[in-house]
Amino acid sequence: MKNKTAIAIHGGAGTILKTEMTAELEAEYRSGLENALKIGWKILQKNGSALDAVEAAVVELENFPLFNAGKGAVFTHEGTNELDASVMNGANLDCGAVAFVKNVKNPVKLARLVMEKTEHILLAGQGANEFAEQMKVEFENDEYFFTDFRYEQFLKAKAANKVQLDHTAEEKGFKVQSSKFKVQNEEKSKDKGQKTKDEIKSKIGTVGAVACDFRGNLAAATSTGGMTNKKFGRIGDTPIIGAGTYADNNSCAVSCTGHGEYFIKAATAFDVSARMKYKNLSLEDAANEAINYLTTIGGEGGLIAVDASGNVVLPFNSEGMYRGFVTIDNEINVMIYK
Amino acid sequence: MKNKTAIAIHGGAGTILKTEMTAELEAEYRSGLENALKIGWKILQKNGSALDAVEAAVVELENFPLFNAGKGAVFTHEGTNELDASVMNGANLDCGAVAFVKNVKNPVKLARLVMEKTEHILLAGQGANEFAEQMKVEFENDEYFFTDFRYEQFLKAKAANKVQLDHTAEEKGFKVQSSKFKVQNEEKSKDKGQKTKDEIKSKIGTVGAVACDFRGNLAAATSTGGMTNKKFGRIGDTPIIGAGTYADNNSCAVSCTGHGEYFIKAATAFDVSARMKYKNLSLEDAANEAINYLTTIGGEGGLIAVDASGNVVLPFNSEGMYRGFVTIDNEINVMIYK
Repeated sequence: MKNKTAIAIHGGAGTILKTEMTAELEAEYRSGLENALKIGWKILQKNGSALDAVEAAVVELENFPLFNAGKGAVFTHEGTNELDASVMNGANLDCGAVAFVKNVKNPVKLARLVMEKTEHILLAGQGANEFAEQMKVEFENDEYFFTDFRYEQFLKAKAANKVQLDHTAEEKGFKVQSSKFKVQNEEKSKDKGQKTKDEIKSKIGTVGAVACDFRGNLAAATSTGGMTNKKFGRIGDTPIIGAGTYADNNSCAVSCTGHGEYFIKAATAFDVSARMKYKNLSLEDAANEAINYLTTIGGEGGLIAVDASGNVVLPFNSEGMYRGFVTIDNEINVMIYK
Repeated sequence: MKNKTAIAIHGGAGTILKTEMTAELEAEYRSGLENALKIGWKILQKNGSALDAVEAAVVELENFPLFNAGKGAVFTHEGTNELDASVMNGANLDCGAVAFVKNVKNPVKLARLVMEKTEHILLAGQGANEFAEQMKVEFENDEYFFTDFRYEQFLKAKAANKVQLDHTAEEKGFKVQSSKFKVQNEEKSKDKGQKTKDEIKSKIGTVGAVACDFRGNLAAATSTGGMTNKKFGRIGDTPIIGAGTYADNNSCAVSCTGHGEYFIKAATAFDVSARMKYKNLSLEDAANEAINYLTTIGGEGGLIAVDASGNVVLPFNSEGMYRGFVTIDNEINVMIYK
């Protein structure tokens, strides 16, 4: 039975071109992914639970500054870091999530506390922060979350956004016009032009983990800093159970990353589970179909998923996805490009 | 083709016993449901869109003080009214939602503006209120939302909650214990004992509408004041696309009501759609299966759904659900009990 154990992680999907990556930066990313895999895998090998494994792996990814979660999160329009996370236990469908919490070192731990200590699933904003205080979770000051490249990225996005809004205001007399708000999206940019290393780093970063433990229990967790320069209390797919995260022992555990709004429209995480349960598809076929569907509605990104037999899939429709997995052969596999 | 048109609405599911309802109160509820149906149906009969029909019907239900949405919303722990709503267009999967906005007269209109004027789907809290101001939506002062019975219900819930927390604090020295927070849930009470009219009114109230227009386009909308005495910025299923609301011309439009956390775990609104698409079930079979699944995981409530042939279903597993529909025969059907 112990052969079943498996873990997969991601550090975000988007435009990652090998031609624009340095050897040093790539090594940094790889070490971040490897460390998270090792921590999660060790828990599984000691007969620990899938839930503990995904939480520990995501904590490691949150603490790693190159990904957009925890330390290294992107900045909101107000220049603050607001964090979203969710976790789900496939054994009983219990789940918890938080949206735009501030100064919480590890939002995934807070999401687990929502799952275990409340009757609710999703807590948001100041209320979620009050809950975090009651739970005595670890807080960090603003400096902890600050990274130079995220701040530069924010300043650029804000400058670009301001120009656009000014332009709009001139045309329409400050009334909001029918064309949609142009908000910088960390993972939506189609600009394939000149990229600096900072730009490579700035596009990507939601993190997640899925695991199957030796009992065949599944779990999934996802964490993000959201979109650079986001406004109006936007909530993406990461804290939405069914969109960014889902786990059900009867099908699979899924963590998604990409342009969140499309994952909400398609209920992508649950969709993989539904295609397995209702169409009797394999994990691989269900995950590929879900990503194909996402593509047809214009969504970009990827997902990682595991089933109760320890199968792992990591499909995506973007240029690349920071990802890795370990299964029965004990080998650590880390990949970035297609 | 025009024969296809259909609309269904709900005003919440829960413990509604005929023996404890007065004739006057029942007549009030029925008139509220009938008026909302008439407004939505008129739009459909004039070749209007399903989207316009569900929005107009939900606006009417929000303005009707006996339901827990818009005017008549329940109070949060802080004694304020915080409102959630969502809307989805089955023709293109566009959707919008808001969570815990304050003083917005018609949250469903704001949800539609999120859908039409931003690149986002879900806006929450103060940010969503800032967006509402930019959109120049209609605001109302606190007095508009205030109703005596909701305030009395809040005071009772707060008193009950306080006792429980005090008890907890004594036992565990103010540390949060392993048992879950006991938060009053408007729709979860299993107390079948003596009920006053106020108590009947206090248990129920999320509102929603689904429609099929003469083109075969589907839409769904849902709106709620959430749970009495809710804390920590809790977000239920109403503003979660896939949980409380879903619409896809290829399957159905769905609006849910009940104990929201279970609808999130089961992704109930999307689940009906998935069972139609992946199992080739009829609307009726898919909706019944989704409610049966909800029952197996301990969830209480109901849903309304319509397909592109104008079929309507309104299943629930609770004692009652305020509900109604109109289809090809032009007859207004309003029901409360099983």
